[in-house]
Amino acid sequence: MTRDDALALDAHDPLAPLREQFALPPGTIYLDGNSLGVLPRATPARVAEVVTGEWGTGLIGSWNQAGWITLPQRVGDKIARLVGAAPGELVAADSTSVNLYKVLAAALAIVRADAPQRTRIVSERSNFPTDLYIAESLAAERGFELLLVDTPEAIPAALDERCAVLMLTHVNYRTGRLHDMAALTRAAHAAGALAVWDLAHSAGAVPVDLNAAEADFAIGCGYKFLNGGPGAPAFVWAHRRHAGRFAQPLSGWMGHAAPFEFTPGYRPAPGIVRYLCGTPAILALAALECGVDTVLAAESFGGMAALRAKSLALTRLFANELRVRCPQLVQVSPESDAERGSQVCLAPRDEPELAYATVQALIARGVVGDFRAPDILRFGFTPLYLRHVDAYDAAVQLAEVLERGEWRRPEFNRRQAVT
Amino acid sequence: MTRDDALALDAHDPLAPLREQFALPPGTIYLDGNSLGVLPRATPARVAEVVTGEWGTGLIGSWNQAGWITLPQRVGDKIARLVGAAPGELVAADSTSVNLYKVLAAALAIVRADAPQRTRIVSERSNFPTDLYIAESLAAERGFELLLVDTPEAIPAALDERCAVLMLTHVNYRTGRLHDMAALTRAAHAAGALAVWDLAHSAGAVPVDLNAAEADFAIGCGYKFLNGGPGAPAFVWAHRRHAGRFAQPLSGWMGHAAPFEFTPGYRPAPGIVRYLCGTPAILALAALECGVDTVLAAESFGGMAALRAKSLALTRLFANELRVRCPQLVQVSPESDAERGSQVCLAPRDEPELAYATVQALIARGVVGDFRAPDILRFGFTPLYLRHVDAYDAAVQLAEVLERGEWRRPEFNRRQAVT
Repeated sequence: MTRDDALALDAHDPLAPLREQFALPPGTIYLDGNSLGVLPRATPARVAEVVTGEWGTGLIGSWNQAGWITLPQRVGDKIARLVGAAPGELVAADSTSVNLYKVLAAALAIVRADAPQRTRIVSERSNFPTDLYIAESLAAERGFELLLVDTPEAIPAALDERCAVLMLTHVNYRTGRLHDMAALTRAAHAAGALAVWDLAHSAGAVPVDLNAAEADFAIGCGYKFLNGGPGAPAFVWAHRRHAGRFAQPLSGWMGHAAPFEFTPGYRPAPGIVRYLCGTPAILALAALECGVDTVLAAESFGGMAALRAKSLALTRLFANELRVRCPQLVQVSPESDAERGSQVCLAPRDEPELAYATVQALIARGVVGDFRAPDILRFGFTPLYLRHVDAYDAAVQLAEVLERGEWRRPEFNRRQAVT
Repeated sequence: MTRDDALALDAHDPLAPLREQFALPPGTIYLDGNSLGVLPRATPARVAEVVTGEWGTGLIGSWNQAGWITLPQRVGDKIARLVGAAPGELVAADSTSVNLYKVLAAALAIVRADAPQRTRIVSERSNFPTDLYIAESLAAERGFELLLVDTPEAIPAALDERCAVLMLTHVNYRTGRLHDMAALTRAAHAAGALAVWDLAHSAGAVPVDLNAAEADFAIGCGYKFLNGGPGAPAFVWAHRRHAGRFAQPLSGWMGHAAPFEFTPGYRPAPGIVRYLCGTPAILALAALECGVDTVLAAESFGGMAALRAKSLALTRLFANELRVRCPQLVQVSPESDAERGSQVCLAPRDEPELAYATVQALIARGVVGDFRAPDILRFGFTPLYLRHVDAYDAAVQLAEVLERGEWRRPEFNRRQAVT
């Protein structure tokens, strides 16, 4: 592969026009869209309209006139199209952690009612920590235990008569490993357990079909591949066989059947609306809607299947170049397309401290990836705005940082808080 | 009182310059700042800077470089100055409902540990419904009962050896009645219970001194008197004797002692930071900060004491005019200054359907108040941007709507969702 080969791939890329939707900073190759997606061009004007027009001029009347009151549902219906959910099945609200608390609590309530002898939540030790923290809290509160397996291969054996809920993140945040959602959900159900999925690194990145997989509950993140902005609202989905069954514990007024009757007793709204809690965050939801629209724009170009094909081409190209150019690194993300999400992750072969410093040195060169403790270099590929030549150039730059020992410079070895 | 008298009061109002901080729509008298505060002039530019500069250009680096990662604490420290909390004791995050869940769960955990025989949460039937819904959920989950008293006068008798937590909203959303926080907290403590306060209609509206009152926990709203925008993040405070004692159940990664170590076990951060949960909502927090700044600007003009004096003058003026001009209405909000928050509430003497329609007819005239089921006309007074002449004119307009029977028109009697 030469640089011209990469340019030729871009020249024939049918998804290339989608890049125009974004305001990309010049001189940057941004491989961190799996941590914070880039700014859509439409967002500043839309947010300004909500702030100055809908809030500033419309004031309280905008809850009705501007449709604020149903914005969680409107944005939710758009996200639903990306994850195989039907209209009315998904809402945008709160954070991923808060939404996980809601659905995991509901799942545990269902198991307690139907199969009280099941007392285990099964997950992976390498799951994103906030998911484990929330599960730990609910397990302690409700008298369940949290069983963490060390490898994906160990999951099937943990699905036994003690398992209440299998709780997994579809694409691992650190390794990029993609689970087979349909197969694992089937296995969980065959064992008599429920399956709860975190789509943080999947929604907008890989094809997801929640209904086809017969998943039980799902949550996901608005600020990664959905380009919703820093700390954007998350989303929550419940299969229709569960959505109306139990009230989730964060029973705020927006999940009430009739919030504006102001009655003292809680009566949950039908379906997914009961998974809302407090007053919706309008500015943040408006920005999220613009971000989701950038992914929906791919529907005219083949949709998620086309995005997935390009994502795989980008990660394959990047991984192949690194295999040739960077003997100092081993690849942590799966080589098989079927098992790899939309990211490439690497670890130093010998010197663990190389990971953090190399990411910093690359950022100084305008190639933005991120470091994940203890020793992972992580590069996310968003096919909406990345080109093949970006993947190629990033690999070349990474090789240079390593070859020249640039990562050893002191300024790249001072740690600060990172996300 | 004549209109000229009201104008004279404005001419001598030392707080008058504070109004310049706001972008008020022309031709509107906005008496709904207790539902959604108006737009500060500084907000659009600040939000645009965060969107276009910090997010669009700074991208992921802004978590450190723009200080996003500690924004909940920075905004929290500003709100702390308005409610008698010390720096480091309060954070801005999530919604009021979600925050109430956190602190009420923590309060119940403390009581369970220290006085397990106490099994009652005491509140008012007229408390804001979302507070009651959250309490109902936690009570059921944790094996407590929720005792709702019908009048404020019945509270002391409910503080007995069965009471675990007294949970009150400082200013009642419907009646505007203001509780004596210090006295009721003392009574709760004397009975061996904890006191949890909702400051939704207090923060930025009436003087609050959480530490002087020795309150146990408090939460509050960002989009009312703090002018943070629709669905702005809420805030949460815990007295320092409690803040580090238990993990709250929404144990997301931002409340972890070391979130970026990505370790699988939850270890709560010291103090109030453990009351954070998911990734902070940056756009919404930036808008909230602008709103809080408009209230802090009053510090050079006498602060909350001066704002309170003006608020009382405005509500007194409005209530007095209505007493003379509107025999069709009875006042629901307390006449005594010491017991009245920053709002005036009325109910129809004879015809309950008058309430909703009159509010609609007034909105059509540019006087914006709101209706609260079943029959309350509610008018909030924000002393930062309202003038005495606004209070006077609003009373005149309300009298006209009633005298002329304008509220009987069909277009004012069609209900829609309102907040």
